[in-house]
Parts: sequence; C-alpha cells; structure tokens
Amino acid sequence: MTTSQFPGLQDIKRAAERIRPFAHRTPVLTCAGLNRLGDTELFFKCENFQKVGAFKFRGACNAVLSLSDAEAARGVATHSSGNHAQAVALAARLRGIPAHIVMPENAPAVKRKAVQGYGADITLCAPTLAAREETLEAVVRQTGAAFIHPYNDERVILGQATAALELLDEIPDLDVILAPVGGGGLLSGTALAAAELAPALRVIGAEPEAADDAHRSLQAGTLLPADNPQTVADGLRTSLGPLTFSILREYVDDIITVSEESIVAAMRHLWERMKILVEPSAAVPLAAVLTHRNAFHLLRVGIILSGGNVDLDRLPWM
Amino acid sequence: MTTSQFPGLQDIKRAAERIRPFAHRTPVLTCAGLNRLGDTELFFKCENFQKVGAFKFRGACNAVLSLSDAEAARGVATHSSGNHAQAVALAARLRGIPAHIVMPENAPAVKRKAVQGYGADITLCAPTLAAREETLEAVVRQTGAAFIHPYNDERVILGQATAALELLDEIPDLDVILAPVGGGGLLSGTALAAAELAPALRVIGAEPEAADDAHRSLQAGTLLPADNPQTVADGLRTSLGPLTFSILREYVDDIITVSEESIVAAMRHLWERMKILVEPSAAVPLAAVLTHRNAFHLLRVGIILSGGNVDLDRLPWM
Repeated sequence: MTTSQFPGLQDIKRAAERIRPFAHRTPVLTCAGLNRLGDTELFFKCENFQKVGAFKFRGACNAVLSLSDAEAARGVATHSSGNHAQAVALAARLRGIPAHIVMPENAPAVKRKAVQGYGADITLCAPTLAAREETLEAVVRQTGAAFIHPYNDERVILGQATAALELLDEIPDLDVILAPVGGGGLLSGTALAAAELAPALRVIGAEPEAADDAHRSLQAGTLLPADNPQTVADGLRTSLGPLTFSILREYVDDIITVSEESIVAAMRHLWERMKILVEPSAAVPLAAVLTHRNAFHLLRVGIILSGGNVDLDRLPWM
Repeated sequence: MTTSQFPGLQDIKRAAERIRPFAHRTPVLTCAGLNRLGDTELFFKCENFQKVGAFKFRGACNAVLSLSDAEAARGVATHSSGNHAQAVALAARLRGIPAHIVMPENAPAVKRKAVQGYGADITLCAPTLAAREETLEAVVRQTGAAFIHPYNDERVILGQATAALELLDEIPDLDVILAPVGGGGLLSGTALAAAELAPALRVIGAEPEAADDAHRSLQAGTLLPADNPQTVADGLRTSLGPLTFSILREYVDDIITVSEESIVAAMRHLWERMKILVEPSAAVPLAAVLTHRNAFHLLRVGIILSGGNVDLDRLPWM
C-alpha cells in the first residue's frame, strides 16, 4: 500500500494519536438476538456513543487539530445542518478557536441550539446549496477561517478511519466490514484502515436505494451525484465528492443498496434488541445484512454504527 | 452485619457465582452532559443491557438455579405480565426445566409472545390479583412447580443484589447509591450489598409520588400497600412485601418520591444524552437526583438503571 496515492497506516495512526485526548474510544457491542436473526456474527462499533453522538467528531477533530497555530487562530468554518456542524463546533471549542457555521434558515431549532451550545457563531442562509456555498465563501473571506469540508477532505477521512482502526484492533479477525455511505468520508476511512490492517477483509458500503449515487457512480466509473434524494436516512442524502469517489473506487469491494422499509426495520431491531439509540443512517448496514442473509451466512461482520442523533418526537415508525 | 437476620456478603457472592455463566456483567456508563446537568458525578449500572432487558433476570436466574434437581424437575411457576415473567421463562429454559407463567388475559400480545419465545407455558386468567393468585395456585397444585415470587423471596433478592455488587466492585468510592423501588426486590438487594461492602454509603430508594407505598410504609413503620396506583413507571406499581419491607426498614436511608413529569424528563435525558433505551421505571432515580440537585451536589452517585423494555409505539412523551 505504500506506493498508493492515498494516505496510509502511519497517517491513520497519527490521526488516532491526535484525537485521542478528545474523542471517546467507543465500545464494540454484540447482540445474541441479532446474531440469531441474521445467522451471522455481528460486531457493532458504537459511534452513536461518540462525542456529539456521531463518528463525525473524529474527522472534524482531526482536521481542526491538524491546522497550524497560525491557521487555527483565524478559526474554522463549514456549512452543515447536521452532525458535522456540531462536530466542528465542539472540536473548535476544544482547541479554543472560533467556529463559523453556515446553516439553512429552515434548519430545526434544536440543531441550531446544539451548535450554539458549543459556542459556535451561526450564519443563516437560504436553504439551497448555492446559498450555502456563497454564504460560506463570504464568511471565509471575512474571517480567514479554514474551511472543513464534511467529507471530501483528507484530514476528515483520516479521522473517520480511526473508528475502523479501533474496531480492527479489538476484533482483528473479521470477514467483512460495513459502513453506511453518504458523502463517503466514513466509508473511505474505513476502507483505508482495512486495506492497511487486513487486506483480505471485504469492505462493503451500505446505501439507501433512494440515494444510491455511490452505487451508480462506482458502476459507471464516474461521479454521478444524486439530485435532492429523499430517504429516511437523512445523513446519507449527500453525494460522493471527487476524493471519496477515488478512494472508494480503489478500496471498496461492493455497495449494497437497501429499501426504506428495511432501514426502518433494522433501526427498530437495534433499538429493541440492543437497547441503544441509532439514527436511521446507522441502521443501513444492518439492513444490508438482513436483506442479504445468505451472503453473510456465518461470517464475522463488523458494522460501524455511525450515529445516534434522532428527533424523539418524530421517529420513522410513528 | 454477621448477626443480622438477613443474608450477608457470602450469600450474595454465592448468588453471583451461580448466575455468572448465564447473566451479563453489564457495563457502568458515565455521561459528561448528565453530570453537568445534575452538577454531580453519576455512574449508571446498565441493567437495560441485561438479558431479557432488565435486572429481573438476575433474581429469577438465582432462584431457578438454587432449586435442587428434584425441585427443578417439576418446573417453576409465577404470575407476571412484565419483565419477571420473561426472566423466569429464560432462566428455566437455560436450566432445561418447564416454566408456567400466569398472565392476565389483557396482557399485551408482544409480552405474551416474548414469554412464549422463551418456551414457557402460559395460562391466561382474569385481570385481577385474586384471579392471578388462584390460577397460579391451581397451576402449582397440578404441576408441583416451585413458585418464584417476583420480589418477596430471598433467592430473588440475592440475585438482584449482584448488580450493586458489580457496581461497587468497579466504582468502590461512591457516596450514595440509588435504585427504583416497586416491590422492593432490587432496592433490598442493593441495600444488602451496600451494607456489607460500603457501610458508610447512603442507600436511597426512588419512587413515583403516584405509587409511594414504600415511602409511606417506612414513615408509618408498617406495610401500607398501594391500591392500584397509576404511574408512567409501570414497573413500580407493585407494593412492598413483608420481606422487602423489613430489609428496607433496616438498611435504606431514605426514599425520595418524584413527579410523573420529572420521570418522563429524566427518561428523555437518558435517551437523548446517553443514546440508550431505558424504561420509565429506570429513570426514576435520575429524576430524584435532578429534582434535588442540592442534596447530591458534587457527590459520586451510583444509579441502577433497572431496565430498557419499552413499547416503541407508545413512548410517554408522544
């Protein structure tokens, strides 16, 4: 792997060192009931227990800590209404630098409050991608802040890779590892870590049928972004970027797409049987395993449970 | 403590040995956000991750395993529509003996199915206490099965005590330990373990105001059962029995009663901040801490999270 154009094990380990004082080493949980249900052996890396409730903190934290002191002094900026916004806000607070978050004006009040709670400065904009990008550009111009992209950024991907690093450290003899794929940051990091630590391990992305741009892009061999896809897995509505696409192309064995119903059913299984909260996006890999039981029969399967941020007043089975 | 009429540390340790091959050693979790909220240091013993989703498995398992082979061969019986029924059913299955469960005919289908799933034999009866007791008596007469009372039984109490035993083994320097109180089995076991292992530790029961028979009974110095109390904490609607009453009288420092609103709020805090499912009864001790912040200011507080069995279609904040 050392000849690859992509970062390698040493880079992932450096990221792990960097974020260690701040990020949780999340537990790996198992569940006899789910193993019986899937007729397989499942190992869940619980990033729903990570700070801000999602793996996103790893990437944001590594990116923020990778800045030089001079860069950091000018702060960081991003546009997001989801977990990445909170992750950047918290990572910036921990480094003691300003965070500027651009959010659509229709973002739920609870998400705005969470980001404000981490001390970030919020700029509202119209709820279109163009408005978000323009507003972000203006904020960056005014402040000199460093832009932290939610996934198409090597520092972010290296941070996300630390989840699989920890999982493989604890359970080295997996047959396959699955992560959900939206923008592709988590799956890229997972694939890089697996390629270095366990080259024989199969790496599979799990994606909603209703937002299957990664599946289509990898089949076509070219980036085919989705146009405003609608899926219950709200964390997976984004499309791959050029960097994540090129990493997935080299290192990912397969993308499995799953129905909306199977996502909600898998989420509910995780809640009822493991007594843990996961968001719909986090349930997508289990949906893939349960939809294709034969393909995973008796295998040792690692799954990254990406996050646990849900609106308890609007659960998908209500 | 060795002169006490009640079982001591050796009995609790024997119970722990007995159930070790079958029960989970559940994790002790902490949460910085909840510590800030309560201005205290909280250690949660997560019995929601126990088998059948509740501490009840410890007591049922110890009772079932305490039977002689001759007794066990005739099976076990109980009446319950809740966690105890599932706990007895699973413990019996693990010992390979029959379990006879008497359930009210209006028990939710999902609970019946769960008990059947563990291979138990169900006898339905009218939904009154008299009918339950009569039906149970008939079942015991017919089968010779051993009755496993849900709480007023020393073997059951010793099993429940193993949760506090594990918590104090992991976090020995607590200032106070709280458990919810319904029939009093969990609180009795917790108090016995604490009295033996950490005599200076304060032991507090937490109870819904709307089902405050333990509070009233201990104040009056005599058993004052509640008459069909209504509380969202459905696991705590039962009243103390003679044995649990006498243990609590000797070993419990205080009972704190809490409002229904505070229970729902505490439950939601646990879900949102810790990303774990707990049932309303399990949230009652945290409700007590958050209602009386001053009394717990900066203390190290152990809380037994009693269980995580909830109907996801009927959450109390819906």
